[in-house]
Amino acid sequence: MQDTNNTPKRGALPDDHPQGPAVILVEPQLGKNIGMCARAMLNCGLTDLRLVSPRDGWPSGSAIQTSSGAIGVIENAKLYETTADAVSDLQFVIATTARERDMVKPVYTPHSAAVELHARRMQKQNCGIMFGPERAGLTNDDVALANAVLNVPLNPGFSSLNLAQAVLLIGYAWYEKLADETPAIYTRRGESPPATQLDFNGAMQHLMDELENKGFFLNPDKRPNTERNIRNMFARLDMTQQETRTLRGIVKALAGKKKARAE
Amino acid sequence: MQDTNNTPKRGALPDDHPQGPAVILVEPQLGKNIGMCARAMLNCGLTDLRLVSPRDGWPSGSAIQTSSGAIGVIENAKLYETTADAVSDLQFVIATTARERDMVKPVYTPHSAAVELHARRMQKQNCGIMFGPERAGLTNDDVALANAVLNVPLNPGFSSLNLAQAVLLIGYAWYEKLADETPAIYTRRGESPPATQLDFNGAMQHLMDELENKGFFLNPDKRPNTERNIRNMFARLDMTQQETRTLRGIVKALAGKKKARAE
Repeated sequence: MQDTNNTPKRGALPDDHPQGPAVILVEPQLGKNIGMCARAMLNCGLTDLRLVSPRDGWPSGSAIQTSSGAIGVIENAKLYETTADAVSDLQFVIATTARERDMVKPVYTPHSAAVELHARRMQKQNCGIMFGPERAGLTNDDVALANAVLNVPLNPGFSSLNLAQAVLLIGYAWYEKLADETPAIYTRRGESPPATQLDFNGAMQHLMDELENKGFFLNPDKRPNTERNIRNMFARLDMTQQETRTLRGIVKALAGKKKARAE
Repeated sequence: MQDTNNTPKRGALPDDHPQGPAVILVEPQLGKNIGMCARAMLNCGLTDLRLVSPRDGWPSGSAIQTSSGAIGVIENAKLYETTADAVSDLQFVIATTARERDMVKPVYTPHSAAVELHARRMQKQNCGIMFGPERAGLTNDDVALANAVLNVPLNPGFSSLNLAQAVLLIGYAWYEKLADETPAIYTRRGESPPATQLDFNGAMQHLMDELENKGFFLNPDKRPNTERNIRNMFARLDMTQQETRTLRGIVKALAGKKKARAE
């Protein structure tokens, strides 16, 4: 999942990708941070970037550079003078905050926010997530514009995230929720299909025959238990057909005569 | 949750915080990336950082700078020459990969990996997560050392993450799960504790030596690949210590002389 080349390809989004929440960066300071946010957004399938009075101006060459190819997000970013303008068309806005605010609002985690945002997406609502400037975070006036706040629970002894990392964690929770239908764990099998029980038992029988032949089963009383343990161990492998052949090859080679060698 | 001051405070971890998985960075290139990984780790309550041959040397001033106060993680980082050394005491290792690998291993997402890692933590197993160099990712030989792989599902049109972002997403899934008491599925292991990588590699070496001895590796060009496939197959077994001894017993018996029999 890491970088694999020097000149970043222009990133894209599949055509049928659902529209995610807008990401509103309020008075971001550094262009390079905006670029890294754009990158994190596109990683997570988010494309609607809104900038409120970026300190170092816009457009920004360093934003393009650090976006690592998320150029479309940068090019389509919309510029606003006030936070109120930036959220005016949205129906549900979440403000990210680190500090406790003396305001009565629902508080979400990335995960619970993702659940809420998807529920609203189903109802065709336009939603957005606001992030404050790098150092100070959102002002209380900005937070007051939001319907809810979001706090990322982290190690209480060390909870500072940079802007792009906050966008990434929250964006990923949204993306993860989107892909909820995908089964989580699967085993990659390459080309070879999974072994049948017949393949597997054949390989086990081959192994047991050779072990017998070599005098491995010293105590006949213990043999059934020993056999079961070995079989049980290999059964966990959940082998491919190719792997049962490899195992047979190993057994055959090991049980064979020692190769003649030149002394 | 963003930066709030200029001189970072030294980050800490609550005393009762449970030990998380080790983070193994294999041949990281830039010190600044190592520092950002340390920061992401400590955000998520992870402290066991292991470095395999960092390209620009160690210790690193830029790592300290970009760690933003995660100094303890940097100071306690352990240095190794090979990936095998770095994981030798671990009982369950996950390799992060972006590309498809033609290897049969369980594939986790950050979320499902977190479930697995917590289940193993409950059983006092030492676990680790490996990350490859910034550009190229882990080699197939490194991946073969792992019990499973982890892939972060992201926008397929733009899925490249930098190293620290990958550590953050995976670390955060772990941290999030920590707050979640849900019991997970685990494999019953009877009396014998899980094998360490040292036990496992010892058994593999024994097998390879005997296969070599028996002339199994006919084609020297194909040998590295064949060895990797065999090692990879057995790595999936996630053996107990007892099972590594059983495997050695099997290899020894098979490779031994045919028993004299009364005709």
